[in-house]
Amino acid sequence: MIHVVGHTAVDHISRVHHLPKDNQSTHITERRISFGGGAANIAAGIAVLGEEVTLHSCVGDDFADSDYEKWMDTLGVRRQFFTVPGTHTPTAFMFTDDSGDQMTFFEWGASKAFATSEAPALPFVHMATADPEFNCKVAEKSGFVSFDPGQDVFWYTKEQLDTIISNADILFANQHEVKTMCETLGVAKEALIKNVKMAIFTMSGDGSTLYMDGTNHFIPAVPVTLADPTGAGDSYRAGFLSAYVRGYAPLTCCRVGTVTASYVVEHAGCQTHLPTWEQMLERYRQHFGTLEEPGPRR
Amino acid sequence: MIHVVGHTAVDHISRVHHLPKDNQSTHITERRISFGGGAANIAAGIAVLGEEVTLHSCVGDDFADSDYEKWMDTLGVRRQFFTVPGTHTPTAFMFTDDSGDQMTFFEWGASKAFATSEAPALPFVHMATADPEFNCKVAEKSGFVSFDPGQDVFWYTKEQLDTIISNADILFANQHEVKTMCETLGVAKEALIKNVKMAIFTMSGDGSTLYMDGTNHFIPAVPVTLADPTGAGDSYRAGFLSAYVRGYAPLTCCRVGTVTASYVVEHAGCQTHLPTWEQMLERYRQHFGTLEEPGPRR
Repeated sequence: MIHVVGHTAVDHISRVHHLPKDNQSTHITERRISFGGGAANIAAGIAVLGEEVTLHSCVGDDFADSDYEKWMDTLGVRRQFFTVPGTHTPTAFMFTDDSGDQMTFFEWGASKAFATSEAPALPFVHMATADPEFNCKVAEKSGFVSFDPGQDVFWYTKEQLDTIISNADILFANQHEVKTMCETLGVAKEALIKNVKMAIFTMSGDGSTLYMDGTNHFIPAVPVTLADPTGAGDSYRAGFLSAYVRGYAPLTCCRVGTVTASYVVEHAGCQTHLPTWEQMLERYRQHFGTLEEPGPRR
Repeated sequence: MIHVVGHTAVDHISRVHHLPKDNQSTHITERRISFGGGAANIAAGIAVLGEEVTLHSCVGDDFADSDYEKWMDTLGVRRQFFTVPGTHTPTAFMFTDDSGDQMTFFEWGASKAFATSEAPALPFVHMATADPEFNCKVAEKSGFVSFDPGQDVFWYTKEQLDTIISNADILFANQHEVKTMCETLGVAKEALIKNVKMAIFTMSGDGSTLYMDGTNHFIPAVPVTLADPTGAGDSYRAGFLSAYVRGYAPLTCCRVGTVTASYVVEHAGCQTHLPTWEQMLERYRQHFGTLEEPGPRR
């Protein structure tokens, strides 16, 4: 069982001709409601790849009987949710204009409850973006710990990052998050890498690098027709973690991650074009050859 | 039966510390979902005042079984709705920062369907903000016509305004809408007034003026503790129209309108503190004395 801790969120993704200035209004020409939140995206990816997964999130009283709840039932994502009456499920409003400029309004909503909730002790956990202090407590109590600061990287203090990273087995981050973590910790990238068993740093469409045992391995991205890059990082993590519990070597897990992500970026939305294990395998063989035999399940 | 034509909309009213510039994000500190849309606000006001009302709006497939639908059932608002599959009910996202500056994003959504819908012929209709061409057709076909261009005043051409105003018995507008209509029509305010039997121009908290039979009457606003001015104009119209069908003289109807509005501005939201006829009467007597005997119902 893989546990994933972090946000379940609803994304309102809108197009406008022009973004407004202060005290202006603008017309929305298209609005799409998308199921998101980093932790929920990862849990959905793991579920579709066929692994058992439990998602730990905070939701508002708008979640029960919602389309999102039904979708999670369909996927078979188990949930240990803190339902916070009188709040909304975290919600993001993103507006993009004709020249590609964006504005984002994010409502933390129910996720405020992480700060006052009892942290669980979990045998195998991935912590996606959420409350730093809660993640610290989970990291200290849990067995195998995978960590990913995500867009909330700015909220972490040096002490919090130190606590989590010293308890983490895997650290996932993009280039921007690596830079912010190094600044907060006051260390160079090399020192950050040395602190964890495995570090996996992603570079958008330019592939990813696995740092482990003092060496590094570059994993090229799988070339596909890009429709929407959002969700790529989350599906990479879903692929990696699913392969990891199945007993594959870390470099193979990275390749499974990049193949999983290649499906998601072909369609708009973070949970709309997730591959099954068999679909992943098919594309894996085309790009990386036959999958090695796995070791024992982890 | 009073018919009201125009938008039924969902308003997301959010607070942020700072409004974003292009390519920035900001945190929502509070978000409230409010039932709105000018026509729906007026219909709700009429229903609570005890008159029969039918609302004509376009809604998306998100409306059925929604909280808004249940609320309209509770109010007893009859509905002749165009449900437009694959669209959203018109939705507004309003963000206000700590210094009171605002940004509004409005999704017309299902209301696009007005343009291609068959306009009804109605015995007594108020047309709130909506599709200009549709409103023209309703005005031409209907009996007693009350008109209110609202925030969509900019969408009307000279020809459309000419058509509606020449068919209208009552014209409602605020100072800003009067100015825009005069510019579009290329006429002075006096000429605009002469074109309709009754013109009622509102001046926010500074009262309103009834223009009729070549004279004008000022109606002072009822002094109350202001919580939120939104919905004031809509509830004024609801009060006026309810009194009008009960047979009261136009000046009395304006006073009923201003008393109705005085309740709504005491609370946040456009449909949250609507008075019953008895509640309206109580405050009416305090400010304007005993209500005269009405004439026959209209």
